[in-house]
Amino acid sequence: MQRNLIRIIGIDPGLRRTGWGVIESDGVRLSYVASGHVTSAADETLAYRLRELFEGISGVIASYRPQEAAVEETFVNDNARATLKLGQARGMALLAPAMKGLKVAEYPPNLVKKTVVGAGHAEKHQIQAMIGFLLPKAKVTSADEADALAIAICHANHRGAQSLAAKALAKVGR
Amino acid sequence: MQRNLIRIIGIDPGLRRTGWGVIESDGVRLSYVASGHVTSAADETLAYRLRELFEGISGVIASYRPQEAAVEETFVNDNARATLKLGQARGMALLAPAMKGLKVAEYPPNLVKKTVVGAGHAEKHQIQAMIGFLLPKAKVTSADEADALAIAICHANHRGAQSLAAKALAKVGR
Repeated sequence: MQRNLIRIIGIDPGLRRTGWGVIESDGVRLSYVASGHVTSAADETLAYRLRELFEGISGVIASYRPQEAAVEETFVNDNARATLKLGQARGMALLAPAMKGLKVAEYPPNLVKKTVVGAGHAEKHQIQAMIGFLLPKAKVTSADEADALAIAICHANHRGAQSLAAKALAKVGR
Repeated sequence: MQRNLIRIIGIDPGLRRTGWGVIESDGVRLSYVASGHVTSAADETLAYRLRELFEGISGVIASYRPQEAAVEETFVNDNARATLKLGQARGMALLAPAMKGLKVAEYPPNLVKKTVVGAGHAEKHQIQAMIGFLLPKAKVTSADEADALAIAICHANHRGAQSLAAKALAKVGR
């Protein structure tokens, strides 16, 4: 029996650097496809920095043709300026896959960590180590890439549950 | 002597409703071209709500062909969730004109109010009243539209100063 293979892109948004990671899942096994990050020039205006990132992520989607996308829900902190900046980058990260017609899922950071490391409060280096274990072929050189792959893995593990929930809700007419 | 006519779009971003207003300026006189707002369906996912708004604003730019854009700098408040939400809509509002190659200026809310009403702490109804005075042909039915036109007017008044500053900086090699 051939399993249904799904290709997923995970995106870790940031105005300076946005990490991305593409994996494949057959529902049981995961495999690494590609990962990297796109950057924006600090001397550009905000609007054109967002354009650079948007074009970069859109290019990655066009090249690797994932069917679904996942973006981490941003950690909202006390620094309102930092939250706003991240919100703007996050708007771009959600928009890029939506413009290509992909389904876009969102997961809270502690669910991503719990799925990948087994604990909701994992350190960056623990995530990187687990990525190396779960995706042995991954060539990960930065924390953004590791985080993006972790988000993709989280989606691979929870997308079934999500669609079951959607079906159940549809049944009760919501 | 024929003056240089410039067409400007002002955008007031919001996830539920994003206001827009297009005006023309010859450096002395202002005239109303069009205004309105685009909305997103509350039952859509965040990514597809941003797509709806992005496509709406991109469509307005394609129809009215402004040469420059202006977006208000978001008021950063204590509610981090609200700030994040607005940041995401704002990312979309900056990206849409940047994707069309427009120059995108940003202005703080109190400069917009000061330019239009004469005071940095004007009320919504004062802005609407001044829009009626400055742009007598404007058909404004909502506060978002009035705010978007106010941002466009602010840019019409300050874009000269901005380009003088840019020229002066270029001269000293910055």
